[in-house]
Amino acid sequence: MTQEEGMAALGVQRRQIDSIDVEIVKLLNRRTLVVEEIGRIKREFDLPIYEPRREDDVFRNVTENNGGPLSAEGVRRVFERIIDEMRNVQRDRMLAQQAKKPEK
Amino acid sequence: MTQEEGMAALGVQRRQIDSIDVEIVKLLNRRTLVVEEIGRIKREFDLPIYEPRREDDVFRNVTENNGGPLSAEGVRRVFERIIDEMRNVQRDRMLAQQAKKPEK
Repeated sequence: MTQEEGMAALGVQRRQIDSIDVEIVKLLNRRTLVVEEIGRIKREFDLPIYEPRREDDVFRNVTENNGGPLSAEGVRRVFERIIDEMRNVQRDRMLAQQAKKPEK
Repeated sequence: MTQEEGMAALGVQRRQIDSIDVEIVKLLNRRTLVVEEIGRIKREFDLPIYEPRREDDVFRNVTENNGGPLSAEGVRRVFERIIDEMRNVQRDRMLAQQAKKPEK
């Protein structure tokens, strides 16, 4: 491969990354919508919002379904961040709802 | 909805989360393979491994293609973690290759 061909090959791979990333963003937002629906169901039935055992299930699911090359620890760290961000979305939504409530 | 129906609805949503997560794990690993291929091309052509401008492109791509409800900052933080984990994979691979080289 010439240097020029190398740069072209790099461009091809980068476009791949960009398209994979767009798919990941879509799935992250779909996941957020489901998390919001779960929050709605929990509030309706006064179920506990934070359930550490369910989080263990989430981590088990992603590490058991990890074919690599990412390590189990790597996958877990990415999902820790994902779960954390979805918690932020729920917290912001709750704060917004509280702000809308009329004062007594 | 009765409490029982609420629990059933929760189960349905959680299975959705689990299946979305498996898709995300697949995409993360596909992304890792492409990142490794990029590393191979860069080494072959002695191109710089770390390119901050390319990282800006990655962040721009994901935030421009974010339809929400995740915020741009949330998406960016998730991808900071993803990029970091892929860097770990590349570093581990390089260390493993160096360890295999015969001593002079």
